[in-house]
Amino acid sequence: MDVHNFQKIRQSCLIESKQRIKQSINEDTFIIQTISCIEELDKAINQLATRTREWYSWYNPEFSKKLTDNEKFIELISIKDKNTLLKEINVKESMGKDLEKRDLDAIIDLSKQTYELIKIREREKKYLKIILEKYCPNTTIILGDMLTAKLIRHAGSLSKLAMLPATVIQIIGAEKSLFKHLSKKGRSPKYGLIFSHNLISEASKKNKGKIARLVAAQASIGIKVDFFKGKPIGYKLKEILERKAKQIR
Amino acid sequence: MDVHNFQKIRQSCLIESKQRIKQSINEDTFIIQTISCIEELDKAINQLATRTREWYSWYNPEFSKKLTDNEKFIELISIKDKNTLLKEINVKESMGKDLEKRDLDAIIDLSKQTYELIKIREREKKYLKIILEKYCPNTTIILGDMLTAKLIRHAGSLSKLAMLPATVIQIIGAEKSLFKHLSKKGRSPKYGLIFSHNLISEASKKNKGKIARLVAAQASIGIKVDFFKGKPIGYKLKEILERKAKQIR
Repeated sequence: MDVHNFQKIRQSCLIESKQRIKQSINEDTFIIQTISCIEELDKAINQLATRTREWYSWYNPEFSKKLTDNEKFIELISIKDKNTLLKEINVKESMGKDLEKRDLDAIIDLSKQTYELIKIREREKKYLKIILEKYCPNTTIILGDMLTAKLIRHAGSLSKLAMLPATVIQIIGAEKSLFKHLSKKGRSPKYGLIFSHNLISEASKKNKGKIARLVAAQASIGIKVDFFKGKPIGYKLKEILERKAKQIR
Repeated sequence: MDVHNFQKIRQSCLIESKQRIKQSINEDTFIIQTISCIEELDKAINQLATRTREWYSWYNPEFSKKLTDNEKFIELISIKDKNTLLKEINVKESMGKDLEKRDLDAIIDLSKQTYELIKIREREKKYLKIILEKYCPNTTIILGDMLTAKLIRHAGSLSKLAMLPATVIQIIGAEKSLFKHLSKKGRSPKYGLIFSHNLISEASKKNKGKIARLVAAQASIGIKVDFFKGKPIGYKLKEILERKAKQIR
């Protein structure tokens, strides 16, 4: 084989590899990145909102005390001025220092930026919903956006998740207590990530385990249908799940 | 005393208290809030920039590998498109997946927001500089903005800082190893927060302690002059400090 031929083969191998790498990126990647991004935004928003509140409290302590919801707080102080806010909560004389414009600007600037982060988190959540509803509609109906995305991230991809039995899906995310149990040092975990499912969190303590099993069983069917591109079955599964859950209570 | 009089007194006491609370907020508060805010923005920027980079790498791995500076990276991908960036680093064929507009938007949206956070951090830094240069100009000349602000935060206020001897200023922030030393379990610390001063970080290891002592001594004079509103002396102190530090090397 002469050098020219060799280089030609090398070239086409390179192109082939690049193509395959390109194709290896699919919805799983988007979902995993987006859910991680949302979680990081959560953290950042929390930190910055707490800082804004502490800072703003020197200026308007009455309003800061009245409204405990951080995100609503950020929104309101970004768009309304002190007098308006005080009027709304019926306070006439504020204990807060009257700040110069420059000092106040530093606070409101931070607040507005934090508000922007809250808005972008909403946009990322919407984007996640759109991908999920196309990629795994049935699972999303049963488990909701965030939980579905977290399960996919934990398993690595939808295909890996589809290969898992329902009992494993039930305790994904509870590896620590599972291994503790396996080394005979504690009880087996009843639920992992799916604990945040509303049917489980609403259930009484003694029923949580049973309902977790039901949720995992139905979700497992949904996941497999999604992976093999079956017909829509999500609402039916959800109905079965809710009926069975009611019988337990 | 009749009820009417009593209520009058109570009313004026309340007004007096509110006034005092108002006046208790001064530059110290602004400095402490701003430096904490800058540190929290640092953390948030770092987290979100890392996430953006990881996510963007699926789309344009070549550029992501080329530019290691996170903040420059965020800036560039927020304003330039893939082809322009690839041309700039002389890459013709990218391994990255060609994303749909919707998928790309989710990444660039995050990137732009992170870039806004970088910009607001700069604004907060400028604001800090303005307060410091008015409130404690001499100290700021010797120690720089960030270090001065951190010392004030650690001491609680400029007045408290002014009451401390130079030896304490030298080891502020190294309380842990100081107490370890006091219970006879280790060496005494040579420096605390002032370690980040450029004269100390540039010095050779065996000289760091000596230079830390010099820096603390001059800073201590500057702090006291600032607190008692003396004449400008900062540049003179800085000159002395630099001359003495040179002799040690």
